[in-house]
Amino acid sequence: MAAPGENLRINGERLWDSLMEMAKIGPGVAGGNNRQTLTDADGEGRALFQKWCEAAGCSMGLDQMGNMFALREGTDLDALPVYVGSHLDTQPTGGKYDGVLGVLGGLEVIRTLNDLDIKTKHPIVVVNWTNEEGTRFAPAMLASGVFAGVHTQDWAYDRVDAKGKKFGDELVRIGWKGDEEVGARKMHALFELHIEQGPILEAEGKDIGVVTHGQGLCWLQLTIIGKDAHTGSTPMPMRKNAGLAMARVLEKVEEIALSHAPHAVGAAGHIDIYPNSRNVIPGKAVFTVDFRSPELAVITDMEARLRVAAQTICDEMGLEVEFEKTGGFDPVEFDETCVAAVRNAAERLGYSHRNIISGAGHDACWINQVAPTAMVMCPCVDGLSHNEAEEISPEWARAGTDVLFHAVVETAEIVE
Amino acid sequence: MAAPGENLRINGERLWDSLMEMAKIGPGVAGGNNRQTLTDADGEGRALFQKWCEAAGCSMGLDQMGNMFALREGTDLDALPVYVGSHLDTQPTGGKYDGVLGVLGGLEVIRTLNDLDIKTKHPIVVVNWTNEEGTRFAPAMLASGVFAGVHTQDWAYDRVDAKGKKFGDELVRIGWKGDEEVGARKMHALFELHIEQGPILEAEGKDIGVVTHGQGLCWLQLTIIGKDAHTGSTPMPMRKNAGLAMARVLEKVEEIALSHAPHAVGAAGHIDIYPNSRNVIPGKAVFTVDFRSPELAVITDMEARLRVAAQTICDEMGLEVEFEKTGGFDPVEFDETCVAAVRNAAERLGYSHRNIISGAGHDACWINQVAPTAMVMCPCVDGLSHNEAEEISPEWARAGTDVLFHAVVETAEIVE
Repeated sequence: MAAPGENLRINGERLWDSLMEMAKIGPGVAGGNNRQTLTDADGEGRALFQKWCEAAGCSMGLDQMGNMFALREGTDLDALPVYVGSHLDTQPTGGKYDGVLGVLGGLEVIRTLNDLDIKTKHPIVVVNWTNEEGTRFAPAMLASGVFAGVHTQDWAYDRVDAKGKKFGDELVRIGWKGDEEVGARKMHALFELHIEQGPILEAEGKDIGVVTHGQGLCWLQLTIIGKDAHTGSTPMPMRKNAGLAMARVLEKVEEIALSHAPHAVGAAGHIDIYPNSRNVIPGKAVFTVDFRSPELAVITDMEARLRVAAQTICDEMGLEVEFEKTGGFDPVEFDETCVAAVRNAAERLGYSHRNIISGAGHDACWINQVAPTAMVMCPCVDGLSHNEAEEISPEWARAGTDVLFHAVVETAEIVE
Repeated sequence: MAAPGENLRINGERLWDSLMEMAKIGPGVAGGNNRQTLTDADGEGRALFQKWCEAAGCSMGLDQMGNMFALREGTDLDALPVYVGSHLDTQPTGGKYDGVLGVLGGLEVIRTLNDLDIKTKHPIVVVNWTNEEGTRFAPAMLASGVFAGVHTQDWAYDRVDAKGKKFGDELVRIGWKGDEEVGARKMHALFELHIEQGPILEAEGKDIGVVTHGQGLCWLQLTIIGKDAHTGSTPMPMRKNAGLAMARVLEKVEEIALSHAPHAVGAAGHIDIYPNSRNVIPGKAVFTVDFRSPELAVITDMEARLRVAAQTICDEMGLEVEFEKTGGFDPVEFDETCVAAVRNAAERLGYSHRNIISGAGHDACWINQVAPTAMVMCPCVDGLSHNEAEEISPEWARAGTDVLFHAVVETAEIVE
């Protein structure tokens, strides 16, 4: 494949200006963004993106899930397009870069090709996936999931938000439901640039994360049933303290995750105890354990061991425990050739880099099931995301997009 | 002192009928009661109690905190009265017996004396203390606390409920603010009958608990500050998991309480973690530890050891911890002579009994600061209280009131 020369770089200032311009739509209350999927602000953001793409000479496609596709023609009419993109929707208290950098980075790839008057054999398509965040309409990565055949379109349309509004109705309401069949497009490859949403790259001073795997996930909700009782008048041996049993299970979560160091992780982010009164021993604890690993066997092992450990703890204390699997997906191994293209690009450009595993879910994780896929990551300050204080530097954005540009263009093959 | 003969018993059916009649006022949604303090239902309950007392020949007193005093004359005009009673107010989802048994048990003492035409040297006064529960207007045991000089009356009047209404205004509104100075009455002794609100008597098959002490209490609220972070993309060694630190502290609470077995207890009933989302490592945990013991030195030791243990755990994990003492009172040692009167009564009547420590707070705990005081406890099903399903048997109510009768009348001295 013909790769760009190492002197070819994207326009970092133009990229940053576009990021700042997009961030004006759906501003948050604390300097970030609230541009949730299928809101009026989402519609405005889409219109601005489409205007920019058309100005860059692209033709637009729109499918029945609202996924947007901006096409720059290739020279070979039989060659499948190389896709590049992410999502423009944000969390309710989201940052300016999560998702947006991947979409506008894709646009910057096309703008740079135009600047340099470079033709590629394969067409290049910049994509904006609908509802990656999943906050308004669960689950996350909804439209890329339908594209990859993970969910049916009808099921996706029936998802409701907190006010009872349906995804399908809201998509029509904002005017971004297209005619194109979802998932009909075939891809030569797909690349997604994303902020790390973790602290590793910044801590190690690396410019680029070459994403080799996406962690698989198991969400296990535990309900421990003890007995509400007065904190004063119930002797210690007669207590059935569901909060204490939960504490012992949380210690096991840590122990089990650490037994699969360094890549496995585990924690409980969601904890509710009942009746949650200072002078009542908790009679019930409900909490969700989140285990992740890039290896399916490790996830399976962690879940199985936690079930045994929690059952043992509760049996010893005379409590009941119920398990519900509330979420999960298998680990992702990204395409070897695409991953190599990312690594080669970082090398060629002289950016420091390391292999990294994506701990969060991304549209690329679903698309990897139907097309050769890879991801590029850039650092973010303090690992912070899903937070209005999310921050990256213009240099990090530039480096990530430079690598994206080189990987995409090498894969799309420059026509000399 | 002249005690009643062992053949003298209260009228268990009349007592039970009165309990059932009172329970019709402020019915709960699940078979119990919602007769919260200073509501219209509380006013109705007071009126019924007053009607019964007057029918039993008592003269009524009412102080500026709404505490009600029904006097049966003694033969010695210089002898201080023996007080007996508890409270008629309930929790929002309260039972039919908590407090009510102690008041109507006191009334039954007077009715029985009338039946038998027994005169006592000391007058006997049945008391209904205002706002023992403290649910609507915190803190609990408010009016007995003012009576004992623990709180000022003005401070009590300024307590507000969840709707912003003041205790003082609501007391006037329901028409039960009296003229009598609070705490002016001097007492020869006070006895309070109460359901155990714990499981010990039922489990051991004992009829009567002879309450020797009231546990002291320390409420320590801990706030552990870690760092919110993504459950997937944050490596285990870089986490500051406030939920895990809390789990380790909860294990210490158990360990510290058990080190002072059998009388000390400890638990955390109230736990909130933030942001409480399944895919965010908890950045903050706020929870309240409730330590109790009948010995002040033990409470002091438990609090001090927990502070050190929590600080050590958080230091090792790189987290911050803050402590706030949110409540506490010293242990109570009830009056030796009054306690002996209760024990003697149980012996004389042939009821099985054991010494017991009150784990909950009661009006008697405050009055013990200003008068010789003791308590009688009867079992309750499954240790349940502050719950509409609270239950006792008529036999338990009868036995407890028999013991109350004998202890009160022995202390008030029968005039032969």
